[in-house]
Amino acid sequence: MNENWLNDGERIDQLYSKDIQIIQSDTVFAFSLDAVLLAYFAKVPKKSQTRIVDLCAGNGAVGLFLSSETAGEISEVEIQPRLADMADRSIKLNGLTEQMKVYNMDLANVTDVIEKDSVDVVTCNPPYFSDHALSKKNPNEYLAIARHELKTTLSGVMKATADVLKMNAKAYFVYRPDRLDDLFSEMKAHRLAPKKIQFVYPKPNTEANMVLVEAIKDGKPNGVRIQQPLIVYNNQNEYGDEVRGMLYGINR
Amino acid sequence: MNENWLNDGERIDQLYSKDIQIIQSDTVFAFSLDAVLLAYFAKVPKKSQTRIVDLCAGNGAVGLFLSSETAGEISEVEIQPRLADMADRSIKLNGLTEQMKVYNMDLANVTDVIEKDSVDVVTCNPPYFSDHALSKKNPNEYLAIARHELKTTLSGVMKATADVLKMNAKAYFVYRPDRLDDLFSEMKAHRLAPKKIQFVYPKPNTEANMVLVEAIKDGKPNGVRIQQPLIVYNNQNEYGDEVRGMLYGINR
Repeated sequence: MNENWLNDGERIDQLYSKDIQIIQSDTVFAFSLDAVLLAYFAKVPKKSQTRIVDLCAGNGAVGLFLSSETAGEISEVEIQPRLADMADRSIKLNGLTEQMKVYNMDLANVTDVIEKDSVDVVTCNPPYFSDHALSKKNPNEYLAIARHELKTTLSGVMKATADVLKMNAKAYFVYRPDRLDDLFSEMKAHRLAPKKIQFVYPKPNTEANMVLVEAIKDGKPNGVRIQQPLIVYNNQNEYGDEVRGMLYGINR
Repeated sequence: MNENWLNDGERIDQLYSKDIQIIQSDTVFAFSLDAVLLAYFAKVPKKSQTRIVDLCAGNGAVGLFLSSETAGEISEVEIQPRLADMADRSIKLNGLTEQMKVYNMDLANVTDVIEKDSVDVVTCNPPYFSDHALSKKNPNEYLAIARHELKTTLSGVMKATADVLKMNAKAYFVYRPDRLDDLFSEMKAHRLAPKKIQFVYPKPNTEANMVLVEAIKDGKPNGVRIQQPLIVYNNQNEYGDEVRGMLYGINR
């Protein structure tokens, strides 16, 4: 283990399927299944000219997981200095400094560093909870900012996404189904046409608790395709084949 | 068989699970699985004061299927005289003239016969295809009007629905997933908040080909619940248990 890479309370986790090491901390930020699902759902061109931006990057998990899928350049945008620093160290830890870069900044200013209409793929795992929807926020500020709309909103995410994407380029989001109505109206307001949608169900015979969305900037409306359901756990409370493959590299 | 109820080319089919007979014609209109799914998805209060309206009623299938679930009054609104007449005869055939009534009219004028803000439940299986999306329409005019937006639009359907519903009353739609973006934006434009959504998949490991939606007039946004997937056929090309129950009354 590379203990010298770590600050207090941090550990190094591994995504075996991608052979990626990632610096985590339960009190600051640790990626969850959302990030793994988003990275597998996103389709990134392989060629080196590809420009990929991950917004609300957290500790950089999504971009790190995508790095083996493309020779393109991956930029991670994260507002929290502590998380951006974790992402930066994970990039170094994996020897990916040529391919990846972290911008510690508010995504509202993303066009200060990334040219408008220049990006091939945007990925984003935004904060799920609207600020005003919760009375008591997460007392841990790092986690509160990652999960609640304290520093950005769904509208802000969609604006930044549409600003940097090329025409007809794709964005990928993971989100909560309860806000599907907000998601559709904000995509529409920002010229993002939903294309592929996949709902994620924790188990068979449950309601979905996540939704994965592919949207195309300036895409035609009314071309939505609902992919087959993705079910995380089987009835024996084990990961299903598809998710096991994403985590451990089996069946893929 | 009650041959004297029938015009040329018509037959009487039975929905065994509901013990309902329905007058059909392949050249005019025959209900399909959509109507059965919609009738099972819709939740109607049992009490006799309940007012239910089925828009785009066709040969009256959805209202007929709902009749055993409620003591309430069911109004069917259908623009095509030939189809409205079939619905009317099916109502008589099933002895339901006290409970059900057909209005042969354009749903744009529905508030001429049904008071605004007076209805507890609206159901609708609207035409799926936007008129301009198809170059060659169905050469059979009856089927073309039922399937294409020739006489109404999704916007018109949502307006009529919102006009007649009480505040906080529910509407149920069956639609095609490819127009999910239109569906969301038209619901929002007409004060209908999506609540429960169920996607219908023809088989395991396929994309969805239908979507069932429950919406609440003036409901709060961001309360969407994605129900477990409904899969029509199993891998042996037989109806799955749930759909077999809807059709034949087994497992219910």
